[in-house]
Amino acid sequence: MKDQISFIPIGGIGNVTKNMYLYEYKDEILIIDCGLGFADETMLGVGLLLPDISYLLNSNLSSSGATGKKIVGMAITHGHEDHTGALPHILPQLAKKTGFSFPIFAGPLTAGLANEKLNEFGIPVRVKAVNYEDGEIKLGSFTISFIRVTHSIPDSSHIFIKTPVGNFYHGSDFKFDLTPFDDKKTDFLKIAKVANEGILCLASDCLRAEKEGFTKSEKVLAENIEEQMRSCEGKFILTTYSSNISRLNQAIQAAQKLGRKVVFVGRSLVNTATIAQKLGYMKLNPGMEIGVNEIKRYKDSNLLLLVAGSQAQANSALSRIANGDHKEISISPKDVVIFSADPIPGNEVSINSLIDSIAKRGARVVYSQITDDFHVSGHASADDLMLLMEMTHPKKLIPIGGTYRQMVAYKNLAKRQGFQDKDILLIENGQEIVFSKDDAVMGRKIPIKNIFVDEISGEEVESFVLQDRQKISKDGVIIVVAEVDSQTGQIVDYPTIISRGLADQENRTANKKVAKDIRDGFSAKKGRVTDWMYIRKKVGEIGERSILKYLRRRPLVLPVIIEV
Amino acid sequence: MKDQISFIPIGGIGNVTKNMYLYEYKDEILIIDCGLGFADETMLGVGLLLPDISYLLNSNLSSSGATGKKIVGMAITHGHEDHTGALPHILPQLAKKTGFSFPIFAGPLTAGLANEKLNEFGIPVRVKAVNYEDGEIKLGSFTISFIRVTHSIPDSSHIFIKTPVGNFYHGSDFKFDLTPFDDKKTDFLKIAKVANEGILCLASDCLRAEKEGFTKSEKVLAENIEEQMRSCEGKFILTTYSSNISRLNQAIQAAQKLGRKVVFVGRSLVNTATIAQKLGYMKLNPGMEIGVNEIKRYKDSNLLLLVAGSQAQANSALSRIANGDHKEISISPKDVVIFSADPIPGNEVSINSLIDSIAKRGARVVYSQITDDFHVSGHASADDLMLLMEMTHPKKLIPIGGTYRQMVAYKNLAKRQGFQDKDILLIENGQEIVFSKDDAVMGRKIPIKNIFVDEISGEEVESFVLQDRQKISKDGVIIVVAEVDSQTGQIVDYPTIISRGLADQENRTANKKVAKDIRDGFSAKKGRVTDWMYIRKKVGEIGERSILKYLRRRPLVLPVIIEV
Repeated sequence: MKDQISFIPIGGIGNVTKNMYLYEYKDEILIIDCGLGFADETMLGVGLLLPDISYLLNSNLSSSGATGKKIVGMAITHGHEDHTGALPHILPQLAKKTGFSFPIFAGPLTAGLANEKLNEFGIPVRVKAVNYEDGEIKLGSFTISFIRVTHSIPDSSHIFIKTPVGNFYHGSDFKFDLTPFDDKKTDFLKIAKVANEGILCLASDCLRAEKEGFTKSEKVLAENIEEQMRSCEGKFILTTYSSNISRLNQAIQAAQKLGRKVVFVGRSLVNTATIAQKLGYMKLNPGMEIGVNEIKRYKDSNLLLLVAGSQAQANSALSRIANGDHKEISISPKDVVIFSADPIPGNEVSINSLIDSIAKRGARVVYSQITDDFHVSGHASADDLMLLMEMTHPKKLIPIGGTYRQMVAYKNLAKRQGFQDKDILLIENGQEIVFSKDDAVMGRKIPIKNIFVDEISGEEVESFVLQDRQKISKDGVIIVVAEVDSQTGQIVDYPTIISRGLADQENRTANKKVAKDIRDGFSAKKGRVTDWMYIRKKVGEIGERSILKYLRRRPLVLPVIIEV
Repeated sequence: MKDQISFIPIGGIGNVTKNMYLYEYKDEILIIDCGLGFADETMLGVGLLLPDISYLLNSNLSSSGATGKKIVGMAITHGHEDHTGALPHILPQLAKKTGFSFPIFAGPLTAGLANEKLNEFGIPVRVKAVNYEDGEIKLGSFTISFIRVTHSIPDSSHIFIKTPVGNFYHGSDFKFDLTPFDDKKTDFLKIAKVANEGILCLASDCLRAEKEGFTKSEKVLAENIEEQMRSCEGKFILTTYSSNISRLNQAIQAAQKLGRKVVFVGRSLVNTATIAQKLGYMKLNPGMEIGVNEIKRYKDSNLLLLVAGSQAQANSALSRIANGDHKEISISPKDVVIFSADPIPGNEVSINSLIDSIAKRGARVVYSQITDDFHVSGHASADDLMLLMEMTHPKKLIPIGGTYRQMVAYKNLAKRQGFQDKDILLIENGQEIVFSKDDAVMGRKIPIKNIFVDEISGEEVESFVLQDRQKISKDGVIIVVAEVDSQTGQIVDYPTIISRGLADQENRTANKKVAKDIRDGFSAKKGRVTDWMYIRKKVGEIGERSILKYLRRRPLVLPVIIEV
């Protein structure tokens, strides 16, 4: 048999998120990334998705490889949730087979963020931080090295993988930003160096293959943010992904200049900020950061609020603030609210409602539809992508991290660069590609399922509970029918609870206690609510919490809102 | 009491669709527009929304006005569903109070389209076609005249309304297109003429107030379409709103040049094309149009398919074609599919799935994210809007037909033009504004509810059934839990039916017959389906049909898909 190596995407192809890729040589497996997916509004009752690792679990894994296959190591490309977030869910499952026997590597910030999460979940394993100056890391028959690239989070990496069959360039999320905020540029010299060793295959980010030109630099935003902040007479509120540390730093720098105190609002943001500061990726002058409870002591015009919830997540800080449901913070007409993140497809309706809610409170809202001045993508556009192809000069190409149409767009770019159809491999998750020295052929089709994680609250990371939706047969379904006054947004009566798969006694409890909790949850709210998405999500969320509390079960909860 | 006139938006403010506005003077009411709304993916089990006419029904209407208020007439601005579509639902309700006692006016195409629908629904009243050269129409104390403007459908109008208190300019959906496809330009002279009579208030389209500059002309697309069609070696498939007659005409003209036969696919498109041809708004050479059943006789490269379903509606022709579920049409790798319509917010996830499904079949898909060459908006951008303000020179402004944030953007434009805060009236549906000769004050707040219409199939107009969602208590809720093979997209077993509010016997029927119908509906499908949105919608749709057939009821049907 010829010497062969397999590339197997477990997740990350066709659906952008839950990135996880296997490189398999004989009985050795190298894993790149271990990310979460995000549910859209049509996936009722679920919050997150995981990569399906059945293939690994069925591979007769052992810590030695003596009886079956062996994981020789894992490398994480960068600190975004869709590349690291599944670690706390996946590692314990793998450990049952192998113990925590393989090392995990990542850049310093990535390791810091991942370890914080592993610690929270009580998982006794840590990601090792590599320095980009470090040399090669030998993992069984694989030799990997980290290459610094630019993206919307510091310490993003491409990974060069040497194998006995040929060299792979794993080109995860990136853009070529020549003026990154932290001045840590892409290591073009190292790319040139590894390219000189010959590259059999480039697996490349393709998310923005549809956009012509180069992606703009993060730096162009700093000026715009400062200018806006200068003319804002009220609170300056900026929302972005918690992981977008460059963006947060830009706002903090402007606040420093203009004498505004900085407040991090929302648990995910507070966590990220804490770690980023600890590791030196975020710098605030002493006394500059204040807590949410101290806000009242300062004038609005002396405040910068960095708020979680740019995707209008149900229980996020920003949704609560916009709907008058936050204890310490309310929106005033002189405030400026900047959405510094594009909507993720599927979130548009929620985000539009959220923007309307804020606009109705009189604040000025700035978002990507009215100006491009406050968000640039972290992903490579057509020219960045073609440049990477040119620099690495691979024999084969695999677009990863995009939907099918973006893979098609990437293929068209590659053809412009002279690649032939047969050398551009468009595949789905689970499709193995078997590489020999000069060739690549399609291998097995490994079944990949959707695995869901239920999330009670967007902010309570520790309450993630793994739940396959097949459990409906076990945990049942509960429909909460709530009548809401169309004028006030208040719940009119106790909601009706319709359940299936619950015992009689449970049913009665659900009908009484859960209905009461939902009713009470709303009666605490003051004023008028007109954001129906928010009401619907909130009913669902109180319902889930309450059912877990009283019944110790996690059925699928479907909220139905009726206006009266 | 001072002489006063009220402006009351029943629908169209804050939510773009279901446009309906009242102008009320003493006991006389003039109605402008009578449109449908469209449900987004989060509104489970409903298809359409209607304006809430409770205010009218509670106004002690009579045909004479002797005992209460009297509707003196209605004017429809243009032929889009969100301005005319509610006529068949609303007119019968009004007729119960007043008979069909008031006249309805519209431009010729608008009247043609509306009358076709009224005829289908068996409603014995017709919209009168006005010619733009016609003079004023006297309706009680109101005198109205139609002004031709450009938009994405021919015969779009603004309406100038003279009243004893002052003159109103009702500036519904428009853009200033100086080179419209049909060469029928905006009647700037008439705008100038009515402006000369003095305008108390301009109610203006504001949907694209966030976009700087002027909106591009429809004409720029014609060249692009022809060029693409010339280089296409397979079927040329174009999808847009059925009502976008200009776009359809551009494609037809190119087909005429290049010798392709034209096929209209999808009932809504066939209907529109028939009426447009009858009234002379669409011209095809004899023999150029062929039926869907004749497609097989022609080479792919000799076909232009105009296909309904640009918003990925559940049972639309395009969704069925893309998912291999259409009898006569399938997608081949040489085909080109052009999406010539922007996604309506809330439809993005479905449209993205649809595009991926088509891309996987190998066809080239062109859509707005990769190029602006095939769609331009029908709505006025910032400069169009400011120009209309300048030309009409009103005392007061009301932005209509947009969401709250777009109203805010409109307000900012008006301030740039020198209008003062107090003269720009941002209101919600149901908020009356009371005008006297020189002033405007907020009046009553009339309660407005969401009224839903259930739609079994996107294409079967005659099966619309009016259904308030409050009927859940009467008709019940049915959840269809279907297990689908994640590899093949086939339903694995009979789905589980969970119902509430049905009698025992009904329950048994639902569980047996409905489950069987759903199972059978899928077993007919060949090949692999990977579009989960499509599967979910299809389960819901078969479920609804089947329940109506066996139980004669229309409960809320919630499809839940589980992958196994």
